Amino acid sequence: MKTKPGLSIIKIGGNIIDNEQLLSEFLTDFSELKGHKILVHGGGKKASEIAEKLGLKPCFSNGRRITDEAMLDVAVMTYSGLLNKQIVAQLQQFGTNSIGFSGADGNLIQSEKRKNTEIDFGFVGDVIQVNNKLISALLVQNCIPVFSAITHDGKGQLLNTNADTIAAEIAISLSEEYEVELIYCFEKKGVLLNSEDDDSVIEVLDFEKYQTLKNEQTIHSGMLPKLENCFKSLNNGVHTIVIGNQKTLKNKAAATQIKL
Amino acid sequence: MKTKPGLSIIKIGGNIIDNEQLLSEFLTDFSELKGHKILVHGGGKKASEIAEKLGLKPCFSNGRRITDEAMLDVAVMTYSGLLNKQIVAQLQQFGTNSIGFSGADGNLIQSEKRKNTEIDFGFVGDVIQVNNKLISALLVQNCIPVFSAITHDGKGQLLNTNADTIAAEIAISLSEEYEVELIYCFEKKGVLLNSEDDDSVIEVLDFEKYQTLKNEQTIHSGMLPKLENCFKSLNNGVHTIVIGNQKTLKNKAAATQIKL
Repeated sequence: MKTKPGLSIIKIGGNIIDNEQLLSEFLTDFSELKGHKILVHGGGKKASEIAEKLGLKPCFSNGRRITDEAMLDVAVMTYSGLLNKQIVAQLQQFGTNSIGFSGADGNLIQSEKRKNTEIDFGFVGDVIQVNNKLISALLVQNCIPVFSAITHDGKGQLLNTNADTIAAEIAISLSEEYEVELIYCFEKKGVLLNSEDDDSVIEVLDFEKYQTLKNEQTIHSGMLPKLENCFKSLNNGVHTIVIGNQKTLKNKAAATQIKL
Repeated sequence: MKTKPGLSIIKIGGNIIDNEQLLSEFLTDFSELKGHKILVHGGGKKASEIAEKLGLKPCFSNGRRITDEAMLDVAVMTYSGLLNKQIVAQLQQFGTNSIGFSGADGNLIQSEKRKNTEIDFGFVGDVIQVNNKLISALLVQNCIPVFSAITHDGKGQLLNTNADTIAAEIAISLSEEYEVELIYCFEKKGVLLNSEDDDSVIEVLDFEKYQTLKNEQTIHSGMLPKLENCFKSLNNGVHTIVIGNQKTLKNKAAATQIKL
């Protein structure tokens, strides 16, 4: 079997994006990372901050936050505009030839508006297709794609989409051609055994252990969809998954490795 | 001499962007345009509208409007975020595989912060370099670049840049490889002999006639920098320049052709 080239896909969350110093340190490390790479970023607190300044009221349906048209506009402006271009400009400064994308650009990530009989989530999209051909063509030309968490439905509608899921779907799609390493950087050093103890990092988390910890409710709330994304990715060809903080690029051993 | 392939570069202004119906009609025409093409767009009233909602006060220095940091953020959000992605999503709907860019993306347009001894214009950039190699590579792959009026200085700083100038600089840079037709679409049918009479379109405007009309002050204010851009472009390899309204793509004969 021919060896596939390596590809690192790194997703960063709000804690890094919201902190100028952390973001700059992370982007320096990202620039120094060898080989093919892709960055996926969320939006942090900036979108809520701008929405509030614009006088928008958060919108809920049955207790669930929904993305109405005004909030979608703020998400597009903030994620695909301000944050994406600031990240790209900083990477250019470090000599990393990055290009910022929404899923509409080059039809890179197509999604469909979430269907739910009980709740209308508004302009939220679930990924249905990744244009891996164009992403590959860019990687071959040493362009580094930087994805914001906005996709489109192919019918002219932009959609707000979970950044963890975007990272996972890109990873799955590109694992046909690449040996993909997916790294989630968030506010903790890894998946914790005790959410009160930042040093209780689980070194290796496999599916069986995950099931046990989930049933015990040791792992709960926001970690559940993140880990479901991870296991789905591993089951669909992604080679390696690591969950840690912004220092993980430099020190993977301190983070949590997810295994089947 | 080998014949160069054709390339149409179209710049649209605020009057088209601010009007949903006009924009949709224009994008339909743009989609139907044959051959290689590039779209450059300004920002229209949207940025001022958002700035006002955010409570930002317009900033002036010696009577000239300047782009302070807060206003730059709004420009980046609005031009490279909201408008650029809405345009790209609409073009995707029409089957046109467009990709939206700021000048930072792929280091496509590098500029330098405007130097002026009397006025500090703030975060405003003058174009110094266009990455025509990457633009060409995209055109060959039938990707349609859509440029917003934001550039970067290569040192991490985004800069607000005149969209007319961006269109002209891209046109000049790509005319080495392509026979470039540059079309400026604005609110009038063409360059007018009498600004009160919308039907007084000058059919052909050459440099001599321009000089005369400028001295007579028949042509004045905003038209002057636009036309200076045109003559600079023609003097630097651009093949054809047309100035007209949003219908010009369908009917060039009704617009003004600029000649040396």
